[in-house]
Amino acid sequence: MDIAFVLYPDMTALDLIGPYDVLGHAPDVTPHFVAATLDPVRCDAGLLITPTTTFESMDRADVIVVPGGKPYDVLADGTVTTWLRKVHPTATWTTSVCTGSTLLAAAGVLEGKRATTHWAMRDLLASLGAEVSTDRVVRDGQVITGAGVSAGIDMALTLAGILWGDTLAQGLQLAIEYDPEPPYDSGSVEKASPEVVNLIRGLLVNDFSADRN
Amino acid sequence: MDIAFVLYPDMTALDLIGPYDVLGHAPDVTPHFVAATLDPVRCDAGLLITPTTTFESMDRADVIVVPGGKPYDVLADGTVTTWLRKVHPTATWTTSVCTGSTLLAAAGVLEGKRATTHWAMRDLLASLGAEVSTDRVVRDGQVITGAGVSAGIDMALTLAGILWGDTLAQGLQLAIEYDPEPPYDSGSVEKASPEVVNLIRGLLVNDFSADRN
Repeated sequence: MDIAFVLYPDMTALDLIGPYDVLGHAPDVTPHFVAATLDPVRCDAGLLITPTTTFESMDRADVIVVPGGKPYDVLADGTVTTWLRKVHPTATWTTSVCTGSTLLAAAGVLEGKRATTHWAMRDLLASLGAEVSTDRVVRDGQVITGAGVSAGIDMALTLAGILWGDTLAQGLQLAIEYDPEPPYDSGSVEKASPEVVNLIRGLLVNDFSADRN
Repeated sequence: MDIAFVLYPDMTALDLIGPYDVLGHAPDVTPHFVAATLDPVRCDAGLLITPTTTFESMDRADVIVVPGGKPYDVLADGTVTTWLRKVHPTATWTTSVCTGSTLLAAAGVLEGKRATTHWAMRDLLASLGAEVSTDRVVRDGQVITGAGVSAGIDMALTLAGILWGDTLAQGLQLAIEYDPEPPYDSGSVEKASPEVVNLIRGLLVNDFSADRN
């Protein structure tokens, strides 16, 4: 099973690495890290990931995982969405985490489908034609989308259960000891205080939109 | 604030990328990815991370984050533990995720301290002289350890609260939308079924111990 983990500049690494460390250890999985070139890709807080293949070289995948990042930049660039249009029809499962769903929408993958995204980017996803859900993980047909960043772990465990059954999926959860105990209860926009929401909305909107200036 | 994210071959990427995407976006943080050389480091399921500096070049850090991996290999090699002995005295906080705590123990950082690790490696941590806790996050003095893999997110949010206060830590939780909804409840050895525990214990012990063959 070939899994394509998509890389692009200023992506959020955890969006991708959560699903990678859930799915990548399963038997018979070959992970591919695919980008525009083989040069290291700089993530949004400085991590450098080295691709193993390029968009030009990879023309099929069994599973595609698209992380989030600065969507306006990536949409304007068009490289990722062009590749998604080419490879999505070959995939059994196409998935995204965070604003990765906006790239799926722009590539036509979410036409008539429900999908989720980072809480601060729901309007953008709606403007691209998807039916926006506020759920953490949304499956519609052969497409599974996860909400912001850490939701990729829940998305990938959901996919693991579909692909390989509950026992192995539960084992993968145990292997990464995913028994969360967040020290705070402010992980959703509904639960965080208005002070915290405003603080982060301001930072994120600047961040997501920096490319529009 | 200089944060050293330690890299070594066959490490588990999510151990490191959870804390990186919690701590790395905070104001005034400079993340450093430090390894034996500047060549890409291959993680245990194939991800390649490119270091930004080397153990030889980096002789101080404000915060150190040590991920887990194949501990017997890394202990036998000695490169990481030698570096930890040099740099730990310069750090305000020394932290680990998963079997990273066994490297802290071998470097003398956990002498007389409580610490946690991946559930399958508690015996190894005890054999290295630490007082083993089964808690998900353990703080003892200026050292914070997290349990297996995904516990790094909880560890890092705990540290963020200490470093920057509850409001920013809650904001960082909201930014990564960390409101977990695991599709299964098998994330700890106490909660998973015996069938699942046996499946994974067999796989992990082979994996952790492959270097001993």
